[in-house]
Amino acid sequence: MNSPQDAAMTPALRDLATTLSADLPARAIVTDAEAIAPWLVDWRRRYQGHADLLIEPEDTAQVQSVVRAAAAHRVPLVPQGGNSSMVGGATPPADGSAAILSLRRMKRMRRLDPDAGLAVAEAGVILAELHEAALSVGRRFPLTLGARGSATVGGLVSTNAGGTQVLRFGTMRGLVAGVEAVLPDGSLHDGLSPLKKDNRGYDLNQLLIGAEGTLGIVTAAALRLVPAIAARAVAWVALASPDDALALLRRFQAASDAIESFELLPRESLAAVLAYLPDARAPVAAEAPWHVLVEVTAADAGADPAGIVERVLAATLADGLITDATIAASEAQADAFWRMREAISDAERATGPAAQHDISVPVDTMPRFMVDAAAACEARFPGTRASGFGHLGDGNVHFHVRAPKGTAPAHWYGEEVPVVSAFVHDLVVAAGGSISAEHGIGQMKIAELARLSSPARMGALHAIKQALDPNWLFNPGKLIAR
Amino acid sequence: MNSPQDAAMTPALRDLATTLSADLPARAIVTDAEAIAPWLVDWRRRYQGHADLLIEPEDTAQVQSVVRAAAAHRVPLVPQGGNSSMVGGATPPADGSAAILSLRRMKRMRRLDPDAGLAVAEAGVILAELHEAALSVGRRFPLTLGARGSATVGGLVSTNAGGTQVLRFGTMRGLVAGVEAVLPDGSLHDGLSPLKKDNRGYDLNQLLIGAEGTLGIVTAAALRLVPAIAARAVAWVALASPDDALALLRRFQAASDAIESFELLPRESLAAVLAYLPDARAPVAAEAPWHVLVEVTAADAGADPAGIVERVLAATLADGLITDATIAASEAQADAFWRMREAISDAERATGPAAQHDISVPVDTMPRFMVDAAAACEARFPGTRASGFGHLGDGNVHFHVRAPKGTAPAHWYGEEVPVVSAFVHDLVVAAGGSISAEHGIGQMKIAELARLSSPARMGALHAIKQALDPNWLFNPGKLIAR
Repeated sequence: MNSPQDAAMTPALRDLATTLSADLPARAIVTDAEAIAPWLVDWRRRYQGHADLLIEPEDTAQVQSVVRAAAAHRVPLVPQGGNSSMVGGATPPADGSAAILSLRRMKRMRRLDPDAGLAVAEAGVILAELHEAALSVGRRFPLTLGARGSATVGGLVSTNAGGTQVLRFGTMRGLVAGVEAVLPDGSLHDGLSPLKKDNRGYDLNQLLIGAEGTLGIVTAAALRLVPAIAARAVAWVALASPDDALALLRRFQAASDAIESFELLPRESLAAVLAYLPDARAPVAAEAPWHVLVEVTAADAGADPAGIVERVLAATLADGLITDATIAASEAQADAFWRMREAISDAERATGPAAQHDISVPVDTMPRFMVDAAAACEARFPGTRASGFGHLGDGNVHFHVRAPKGTAPAHWYGEEVPVVSAFVHDLVVAAGGSISAEHGIGQMKIAELARLSSPARMGALHAIKQALDPNWLFNPGKLIAR
Repeated sequence: MNSPQDAAMTPALRDLATTLSADLPARAIVTDAEAIAPWLVDWRRRYQGHADLLIEPEDTAQVQSVVRAAAAHRVPLVPQGGNSSMVGGATPPADGSAAILSLRRMKRMRRLDPDAGLAVAEAGVILAELHEAALSVGRRFPLTLGARGSATVGGLVSTNAGGTQVLRFGTMRGLVAGVEAVLPDGSLHDGLSPLKKDNRGYDLNQLLIGAEGTLGIVTAAALRLVPAIAARAVAWVALASPDDALALLRRFQAASDAIESFELLPRESLAAVLAYLPDARAPVAAEAPWHVLVEVTAADAGADPAGIVERVLAATLADGLITDATIAASEAQADAFWRMREAISDAERATGPAAQHDISVPVDTMPRFMVDAAAACEARFPGTRASGFGHLGDGNVHFHVRAPKGTAPAHWYGEEVPVVSAFVHDLVVAAGGSISAEHGIGQMKIAELARLSSPARMGALHAIKQALDPNWLFNPGKLIAR
């Protein structure tokens, strides 16, 4: 480490660094400004924080030491994994009062058991590494997302991460069999034992999942592995409306319980992708206002997911529920379909500024919501174009409102987006939905959460935070304000 | 109602009854001792409580009125559904200080939607009624248990109930899509909207599931429905050891993801059942130390669960993993197999007094635990016979230690059982297990939970309870002591 007497540090941070130097190896205490700099801004570059101390413990006992020392010196701690939060959830406050507690050095795979279908991974294991480890023993960790090359197990657990493969096996909440975490008093919650039935009072594991590091520092998790995919069928479908897409989803679900993905996109999103990806071609010939990407898998090599997809598509073509469809003829074509889906965000960004919303409503009300909310936005904000795309099967779409042609980005983001987003969020709440389906609250949505939640909900969140972290030292300024 | 001036009542209860008479219909305020008496003792008749006031609200707003008035008069409330707790979780304290808050009159099925796979049931709906309602629309609510004719939705949610059909779809925690509950300050937590993705901070629904009514009064729940069963195959298998049973389970799980049940029992349990049920016959000819009952189902009439079972059993007979097996040739025979499984508790009770334990350990360590713990108990308590039976696939068995021949029941239950149970619980904790797999803590295990939990865990439970129910009025004396 550098000298803990660095002039920039607050006295509390200096004292913390000095205390920690007795318990932690020198490499775990980072005070070099250049080494810290990359971790001070979120990856979307919307929140710039400051910290003069970055702590990188290497095992759970060291995390306990850090938490105890920080409590003694009243230093706030900002836990950080891959720093890929979409809502500024891992960025330190700008006033330099906090230390960053990075879990990136805790990378042990403590257990990998294909028979039990379990992995116990430390917080710093990266999602792509977990995928590889599971495949190496013939299993699969089914959750995936764009940031899989940087997102860590600790962050995935703490944000209850989702993604494009949630339909069948659920979000992290459904895949976590156990949690190890250091609580704000430095005590260790050892909830790693993967018990399928355990009724010993309040479920602390569930409370820590999605708590965004405000109640505990997740140091390891027991994770469920599922059978590896032996065969899959990927199809692209053209149809007339989100209502028809939901009806199609119900047909698929009646035919199979192995529907992995069911992604909906409007014509505009497809057009943006075709303009953005140089080699992309429209998967179906028909012009259609809405499109669906569906994937069905099988763990058994003898099963026939393509047969299931063919039967459902033939029947729905025959009765007019869909207008056109094609099944990927090869893995290469299946990957090409998926690349188009995954390019939507970048492709739409290339078309101009937009207000983006990660929202959910009950699955069966999503078709109506998408149509009505788009119309309401375009009426309220003339010149805008609104549409949603994404995980229809999860009741979760990314709802974008694009700026009128020629709007200056600075004006749009500075003046218009807050008004547009409040309008969209009001619609979501009226529909019984969530203003954060998968990205969490972080800094970005903390005011909107407080504005739109019932007093019962905010009172309970505040009481729980106050009870478990009475000095509000864990991830300050995220999720709930003091 | 009777006069709220009944002499027996405490002044606080009298004041509460008077206040409530303004908001609730007279029939909802019960002070007649004879009407209250059946609800003062748990169904195992181990805990005798006392209450001079039984309140039976008919909708959620009335529950809020009750909670607010009870808070104003500082009257503890004991929520009660079917009163079928195995751990005295719904029995009022003996000092008569509390009122019983019965949810039994809240019986509306607010929604029943086969397409969305959802039911929204009020707290007083009985499990058997829920089963029938789901079947009436071609769906199934998969969780079931012995008390299905009396257990209510509110109690099932509040205790995170389990049962014999947990292997595939999980406990209540996996089947609850939303919770409505009245919090201790009288505010309403409306978490009914069935969102598949929702990351708005701490998951209050998950916190309320399994909280045994100590944090909130569950008034309704959104529940997942699954496809009705089109075909099932039920088999009885004889084998040499719990280790072999686990290996067999893994073979089944590799062959199908529709294993509904996998129940393990030792020779002694089968012998007790054969002696107890007049018409029962041993399902397989072979003498074997261990037996398994397995059920595989299919939602699709074209699927072939019997074929899956036949293939797995043929292969495992061929390689010697199992010693004998038979597949039920008819629904009647399948039911007969299940009747034998379900009679074990009663059959063993008929053989003499025992100390019973509802425990779990990680699935893959259960075979070793069953063998080692039985040997340890029999060595430590000479003359006893110990064995476990139950849900191997969930890592949850009912572990019974039978008294030495001739032991007087009063002596056994009064003197020996606490010592035996503490010994068993110590073994469970050493194995990373839970002293309450599915029955909860209630009154019965409150001291053992405190003795065997880490300070981190007890501190967090206490802090959460104190934060949400600062006057400790919700279900006093259950789960955690003040």
